[in-house]
Amino acid sequence: MTLARKSVTFEGQFRMHRAGSIESPTLAYETWGELNDAKDNAILIFTGLSPSAHAASCAEDPTPGWWEEMIGSGLPLDTDRYFVICVNSLGSCFGSTGPASVNPQTGELYRLSFPVLTLEDIAESAWLVVRYLGIEQLHSVVGCSMGGMTGLALCVRHPEATRSFVSISSATRAMPFSIAVRSLQRELIRSDPKWKKGNYKVGDSPIMGQRLARKLGMITYRSAEEWALRFGRERSTTHARIEDMFVAEFAVESYLENLANKFTGTFDPNCYLYLSHASDLFDLAEYGGSLKSGFKRLNLERALVIGVRTDILFPPVQQRELAAGFAEVCRGTQHVELDCVRGHDSFLVEMDAFRPVICEFFDACPPLTVVAAE
Amino acid sequence: MTLARKSVTFEGQFRMHRAGSIESPTLAYETWGELNDAKDNAILIFTGLSPSAHAASCAEDPTPGWWEEMIGSGLPLDTDRYFVICVNSLGSCFGSTGPASVNPQTGELYRLSFPVLTLEDIAESAWLVVRYLGIEQLHSVVGCSMGGMTGLALCVRHPEATRSFVSISSATRAMPFSIAVRSLQRELIRSDPKWKKGNYKVGDSPIMGQRLARKLGMITYRSAEEWALRFGRERSTTHARIEDMFVAEFAVESYLENLANKFTGTFDPNCYLYLSHASDLFDLAEYGGSLKSGFKRLNLERALVIGVRTDILFPPVQQRELAAGFAEVCRGTQHVELDCVRGHDSFLVEMDAFRPVICEFFDACPPLTVVAAE
Repeated sequence: MTLARKSVTFEGQFRMHRAGSIESPTLAYETWGELNDAKDNAILIFTGLSPSAHAASCAEDPTPGWWEEMIGSGLPLDTDRYFVICVNSLGSCFGSTGPASVNPQTGELYRLSFPVLTLEDIAESAWLVVRYLGIEQLHSVVGCSMGGMTGLALCVRHPEATRSFVSISSATRAMPFSIAVRSLQRELIRSDPKWKKGNYKVGDSPIMGQRLARKLGMITYRSAEEWALRFGRERSTTHARIEDMFVAEFAVESYLENLANKFTGTFDPNCYLYLSHASDLFDLAEYGGSLKSGFKRLNLERALVIGVRTDILFPPVQQRELAAGFAEVCRGTQHVELDCVRGHDSFLVEMDAFRPVICEFFDACPPLTVVAAE
Repeated sequence: MTLARKSVTFEGQFRMHRAGSIESPTLAYETWGELNDAKDNAILIFTGLSPSAHAASCAEDPTPGWWEEMIGSGLPLDTDRYFVICVNSLGSCFGSTGPASVNPQTGELYRLSFPVLTLEDIAESAWLVVRYLGIEQLHSVVGCSMGGMTGLALCVRHPEATRSFVSISSATRAMPFSIAVRSLQRELIRSDPKWKKGNYKVGDSPIMGQRLARKLGMITYRSAEEWALRFGRERSTTHARIEDMFVAEFAVESYLENLANKFTGTFDPNCYLYLSHASDLFDLAEYGGSLKSGFKRLNLERALVIGVRTDILFPPVQQRELAAGFAEVCRGTQHVELDCVRGHDSFLVEMDAFRPVICEFFDACPPLTVVAAE
């Protein structure tokens, strides 16, 4: 995963939402397009759990980003019109301060001494970056997966932060199926003897636990329907002896093995634990005691909720809940359920389906001053 | 898990379906009710992966069985009319020969020297028990979960073995989502350093891997819908410090922890690996090259397919496939999709929903001779 090409350090104490504080956090970010004179054409992207801020290629870094086909000239997040910002989440390991960073007060890695991370902390630290860039109000917040909840955290705490909101395969809060999956993923990492209560050595990290957690992740990021179509009962080409039940016999097993090996080593295990836990903790209903009261604090002109029929991690029922909540407080709410088969990951791997919906949203609501200038 | 109270050893070589053989296997079983003079009132139950043959209490063993509310006088499998048999699967560890048994040829535990197990082997060995009991043809086969596929294996190989078939939350074969889940469960056990390539010591088995595999199992045996209703975002009562992200914070995490601890130690890890793998291997389409050709080999008067709307392991689409396949070759096919919220496990924990459907099936088709005798 490429590190972001820009970063900013905020000197002083950053108070964490739950408890404790960290000293002078650094936030890595990237931007695309130009901020206009009125500074009202900025879009902030909140990422899912694992991506870096490198959402798209840029002059300084031509490697493709994780949302390459979504951001650029003529693309849904059109850099000819918008100034697009993506911040690496606080707590992550791609340039922003997190458990894998050195604590400036001790000169040692934070590891598990990093305070409990919440999506509120990720939202507040990203908001510091936005303000640092001279922006008082965003045109839009776009939040994918965990990032949609981070976006809600920002909007419920700073109702004037943005005029519009795009929630992609996200939710108002995690429900017990997703909590159980993530809790087990964390336990898989912690059960690897090499984890050593977070004190693993560089170059000798809990690879096995990470591989297992990644496999479990993939089982929930995709869909049974996709795999039935894609693999069926196809055998693995690398499978040598059918008598050996511990060699991947089916194509789906080899596929998971390859994906797990690819991911492992790119993400710091402790950072993963913190971000995963933060995803469980967020609850819009904590703002006023109910989802209704949480939504009531929002101040949005337009909201778009996109979900996917086959998503089991952020399922359609949670998309309907989001859409209904937005609709109560924002007349310009739109809900689209896409018929993609690739489950939760669709927004990363079936961008063709998402592009027209996101395009339409931004076409219908261009930055005010750009319109006035024409 | 209680051992079955009856067992029979078949002297000589038992040839395994894939390759190899085992010497003089023992099969544990239990029976309820009486075999009638015509020997045409027998029902054979094939279990899921983990249950023993103790499906219901009996005089010798009054402890409740795993299907206690389904088998007995006046219950759906009515012991006043039927002779009900349940066999502990070959390869399991509740009295039948499996990887945890002593190989009579070496005097050592089989462990991984046990040949690859298939559902065909489980079916053929249970059929030996049925024949041993003097039965030429069963009134019905009832197969739950994996047991439904075992039942298909019996019927496709011995078309005259039974007159009717009840498939409960099963399938024609495993699809890649279920294969992926089971493959990962097996990997969790194998990744526990205490597994020692199957040579774990008695009293020092891979408990951690088993606990993790059980948690993953429970995530797929139940449903997101059930857990949302049952737990929501309820906090764990045993959770002491909200700052500690490694203590179960949510009720669903404590629930999984308790269930995993309860299961662990009751099932031999190697046996689990063999049975889990056998579930992946079965494919009705291997009989003639297609599902259609597999179904064509069946010879049934009546078939009942029961599935559950919220089952993600043996989902409704697979129930429809089963029902359509039976219907092609058996006019007396009935398909019922139950609206239970507890997912795959519903047949164990929502018996109230299953009872009327199974009752109706057996009421409509009593043993021939019993009817004649009245």
